[in-house]
Amino acid sequence: MDNAKKTKLNKEEPAVGARRRFLGQSALLGLAGAGLLTGCKEDAPVTKAASASASGHAARLTSEVEPGQLDDYYSLSSGGHSGEMRIFGIPSGRTIKRIPVFNIDPMTGWGITNESKAIIGTNPDGSLKYTTGDTHHVHGSYKDGTYDGKYLWVNDKMHSRIARIRMDTMECDKITQLPNVMGYHGTFPDKRDPVDPNINYTTRVFCGGEFHMPLPNDGHDLDDPSKWGVLFSCVDAESMEVRWQVRIDGNCDLVATSYDGKYACSNQYNTENAADQAGMMSAERDACVFFDIARIEKMIKDGKFTTIGKSKVPVVDGRKAANQDPKTALTCYVPVGKNPHGVNASPDGKYMVCSGKLSPTATVIEVALVEKWFNGELKTERDAVVAEPEIGLGPLHTGFDGKGNAFTTLFLDSQIVKWNVDAAIKQFKGDKNAKVILDKVDVHYQPGHGYASMGETKEADGKYYNSGNKFSKDRFLPVGPLHVETEQLIDITGDKMRVISDHTAYPEPHDAIIVRRDVVKTRQIYNMDDFPNAVKPENAGITRNGNKVHVRMMSVAPAYSIPVIKVKKGDEVTITLTNHDKVEDLTHGCAIPMYNINFIVNPQETKSVTFKADKPGAYWIYCTHFCHALHLEMRSRFLVEA
Amino acid sequence: MDNAKKTKLNKEEPAVGARRRFLGQSALLGLAGAGLLTGCKEDAPVTKAASASASGHAARLTSEVEPGQLDDYYSLSSGGHSGEMRIFGIPSGRTIKRIPVFNIDPMTGWGITNESKAIIGTNPDGSLKYTTGDTHHVHGSYKDGTYDGKYLWVNDKMHSRIARIRMDTMECDKITQLPNVMGYHGTFPDKRDPVDPNINYTTRVFCGGEFHMPLPNDGHDLDDPSKWGVLFSCVDAESMEVRWQVRIDGNCDLVATSYDGKYACSNQYNTENAADQAGMMSAERDACVFFDIARIEKMIKDGKFTTIGKSKVPVVDGRKAANQDPKTALTCYVPVGKNPHGVNASPDGKYMVCSGKLSPTATVIEVALVEKWFNGELKTERDAVVAEPEIGLGPLHTGFDGKGNAFTTLFLDSQIVKWNVDAAIKQFKGDKNAKVILDKVDVHYQPGHGYASMGETKEADGKYYNSGNKFSKDRFLPVGPLHVETEQLIDITGDKMRVISDHTAYPEPHDAIIVRRDVVKTRQIYNMDDFPNAVKPENAGITRNGNKVHVRMMSVAPAYSIPVIKVKKGDEVTITLTNHDKVEDLTHGCAIPMYNINFIVNPQETKSVTFKADKPGAYWIYCTHFCHALHLEMRSRFLVEA
Repeated sequence: MDNAKKTKLNKEEPAVGARRRFLGQSALLGLAGAGLLTGCKEDAPVTKAASASASGHAARLTSEVEPGQLDDYYSLSSGGHSGEMRIFGIPSGRTIKRIPVFNIDPMTGWGITNESKAIIGTNPDGSLKYTTGDTHHVHGSYKDGTYDGKYLWVNDKMHSRIARIRMDTMECDKITQLPNVMGYHGTFPDKRDPVDPNINYTTRVFCGGEFHMPLPNDGHDLDDPSKWGVLFSCVDAESMEVRWQVRIDGNCDLVATSYDGKYACSNQYNTENAADQAGMMSAERDACVFFDIARIEKMIKDGKFTTIGKSKVPVVDGRKAANQDPKTALTCYVPVGKNPHGVNASPDGKYMVCSGKLSPTATVIEVALVEKWFNGELKTERDAVVAEPEIGLGPLHTGFDGKGNAFTTLFLDSQIVKWNVDAAIKQFKGDKNAKVILDKVDVHYQPGHGYASMGETKEADGKYYNSGNKFSKDRFLPVGPLHVETEQLIDITGDKMRVISDHTAYPEPHDAIIVRRDVVKTRQIYNMDDFPNAVKPENAGITRNGNKVHVRMMSVAPAYSIPVIKVKKGDEVTITLTNHDKVEDLTHGCAIPMYNINFIVNPQETKSVTFKADKPGAYWIYCTHFCHALHLEMRSRFLVEA
Repeated sequence: MDNAKKTKLNKEEPAVGARRRFLGQSALLGLAGAGLLTGCKEDAPVTKAASASASGHAARLTSEVEPGQLDDYYSLSSGGHSGEMRIFGIPSGRTIKRIPVFNIDPMTGWGITNESKAIIGTNPDGSLKYTTGDTHHVHGSYKDGTYDGKYLWVNDKMHSRIARIRMDTMECDKITQLPNVMGYHGTFPDKRDPVDPNINYTTRVFCGGEFHMPLPNDGHDLDDPSKWGVLFSCVDAESMEVRWQVRIDGNCDLVATSYDGKYACSNQYNTENAADQAGMMSAERDACVFFDIARIEKMIKDGKFTTIGKSKVPVVDGRKAANQDPKTALTCYVPVGKNPHGVNASPDGKYMVCSGKLSPTATVIEVALVEKWFNGELKTERDAVVAEPEIGLGPLHTGFDGKGNAFTTLFLDSQIVKWNVDAAIKQFKGDKNAKVILDKVDVHYQPGHGYASMGETKEADGKYYNSGNKFSKDRFLPVGPLHVETEQLIDITGDKMRVISDHTAYPEPHDAIIVRRDVVKTRQIYNMDDFPNAVKPENAGITRNGNKVHVRMMSVAPAYSIPVIKVKKGDEVTITLTNHDKVEDLTHGCAIPMYNINFIVNPQETKSVTFKADKPGAYWIYCTHFCHALHLEMRSRFLVEA
């Protein structure tokens, strides 16, 4: 099929219908290589909706934020294989911050300072254990069903780590590696305790394991993937320790949690537990697995668990075979569309919506019916499904407007579909007049995640929806073979969606949450006393202990407090620097040429670096962060005697 | 002085005048710590100009780029201590690309792949020599006085390296470390050859050394900074080898080149050659040093040079004492305002403009008069100065509109001043009616570099001016103690400047060039044959040589060509991956969990990684860059036998 024909197919409803039916079959694999499922819609024009917005439709929301005005929302975004997190302003799309997490950031000194290295984790020789990561999903801590502005969590799919971001400083303060997990993908905090009604806030974060691997992964069973396993993990929101793990069937994609605190769930592909692509697509249905948190924790409290390898984390068995009796089951595998992608909780707390990916459907699961299944009051897991509308090709992720409507990204159609959940339920019950699909709008191109303003909370406000598009192609000035991604902001206040702007994002933001600005309360200046190693006039200076030299230095614009530092070749040098400036935004840098040392100190902040003075000579420690008219002149001599 | 009083002073012209006179004195150092020169104008309001633009002035240029429309200009920007380069779209301010240069970028694999490590430079053990950098200035290659779209160069102040970016792929292809240089700051390509009229394009790049250091820097003379020196370097634009160096007095800040190819110049602070801050500010004037390129190269051709330490680069003496006779001098030190910051060539080719920084003036130097000095036809170097208008407090950098007007950032006033060069020359000659200052506009806050669209070329078009502000404070949603910087786009088409948008930039863009979009001609897909190690069906597979295993693999969405790779613990594994997809934007990733391997391959690109298989177990190589509906399922097993 050549491109011209394919594009044409995309535009003609009957043909699209034919493709949908076709995709319902199991013949996908053979076609995959032919480009049918790939992002290669070459010449899709700007949609009518987008053109209309461009040519001066009646003014609704716009992305313009006038000079001196603030954005209305924070978009707190993952950064994919950049290893970082990001903060965008909405509606402007401006990148207000990069938050280094699993990457090295020479600007801030993340991965260079002693403090950040301790958070990331080091080898015995002091080098970083990992310098890469792959962040996918960012979610915030909850109270009463909405964000409390305290923490964010983000996963590292590559090295199975969960990082926590303090929302007061928007910096990473803890990273935990999950034992015996490979491909930690979806993550979500709980919204309240399953048992204690007084705990109406987040105390756990759930982590979906994706890839099967030998348990433990020590080199045994390499040739027999049928013996490999996958774990779903629960991390303590405060201590960041792993509380427990559940062995499951299938590969977790996203994670969601119920508003009542009772359930975490994950949409799963490869419930076949296969090790090859054909096997991963052989079943017509995969699952959304629900975890009964109270039962799991009761079982662990009762000591009914095992451990794996060197890990001391308690593990229970959540595989299908071990959970046949609903009344004692820890897990409930609800059958959903083939190789689903994404599960999202509706803001009314009633439903979980899984997107079909290889099925052109969304599956609506009623949480109350899952509870009935666990109580033995439902015949089959599938009976928890209350709707499964056909919504378009390649549905991946769903956001909500708080008015009963869902907005799902259609990867293959390069569209967002707006559909009504209640209408879908009526249709599923047989109402042929139910109007499920309310609107579709083209996006550019191949959307992955889509999410609405406050859409993951009870305060979903139905203003903006962001379509995170994986391909941008011709949407921005050409910059060579590597393309930026398109974040398209959509006004969802009206009956019709309207694309109001194309923003850019360095690859690869996957998921984000769009948070009302009043939720976020940051500290704009540190408290010096929060740093136990803060340098003050009384302890400033240079001390030596054997070959260990400690330089305790202060910065006050435009000077460091120590103009000349002299050490001997071979010394282990620690420089601790406290910024005594108190003016907001008056940050200083500290670079040592040829020593690969580079970090900043924000107002009232303290950081330290330790390195070996292995190169004799004179080096100018200089300020890298423009601070003052005499910024260029802000430097000290670092002298290393041969 | 408390903040309220200080802010008041900023608003009252007479008081500002008083401050200007005051700053003309040499009493600055004592006051520096009191915050007078620091970025602490706490409550400056939105200017009238900006408010006007916000409230619907007659529409001129705006920053809005409608969905599906392209920007008009590329802003090619440095990234400061992030170590990277960036491409912004103008007028939208969208970040279209980050170009990793001196930093590690897990997304692209920069600093991880064998190819990028070879460009950055490695230690004998294969690890990167440096993982940080500090980029300040980006400039492009010229032909006939304007950009030819071939190369960009950017400096690393921290480790004295110059990097070249190929503009067809917008990727770094060469990095050269300058010998015996510390604090390589300003950089500029030449615009034609000083001798050969047929060479009307860039063949050299000049590099200003900033910090004094022992020559060579081997541990001698640590305690006698009076013996330390500074070198100005010339790098070959094609080979990227260092052609020659000139020892100079003073510390180079920026570099500029004349349109006739005869001169490079650099504004200098610390012509006192002092080692402490007070000494660096003791003289009332510093200099703009001009280099006579033809004379320097003649001298080197004649073998009249020395070398320093292990470096083989020829070095000539350009210090004042050795260049007293204009007719043989290699350098001409033109006295300018105290501790100047920035030198920029006017688009008509006539003038170099230095900003005063600690002097409230700009100094206009006529290039033809510098030539006269070198010919022995000018009495003193200072006679090359044709204007020195008072323009405001803390002038740093100047852009041009091609209509005879200059636009200079005023760091302390937090303003941009528009002034007329010819009027300033008339005023300097005694015309008291000359109207030099045409307009001022507030920016937010403390501008560093400012640059106009095509303003560094003969095609300066007077459309946009970008004010790169060092402080943003309250201009964006708060995100904690670390603030983003403000890039303010100013419409300079009219008599009055108009701030049209506040864009954000991760710290710390210093300088950029704004380039018309037709100048840039990129390749959107690689040519597979450009990669000598490309993997094709005929050489794909796994080969072993002793304990060295080479995996030659291809990617075609949604699969890698080798589903299972088995090696032994201790093997040295090289994976070479060629992306056989040809669809624009169809990039694949390649991550190996627990092995810290992460890179991408764009369409038709080849990359490789080499690592030791030191951890037994099963690992899923997976695609990190969303490529296809079956992207999640795109993975291969990497098995390491214990």
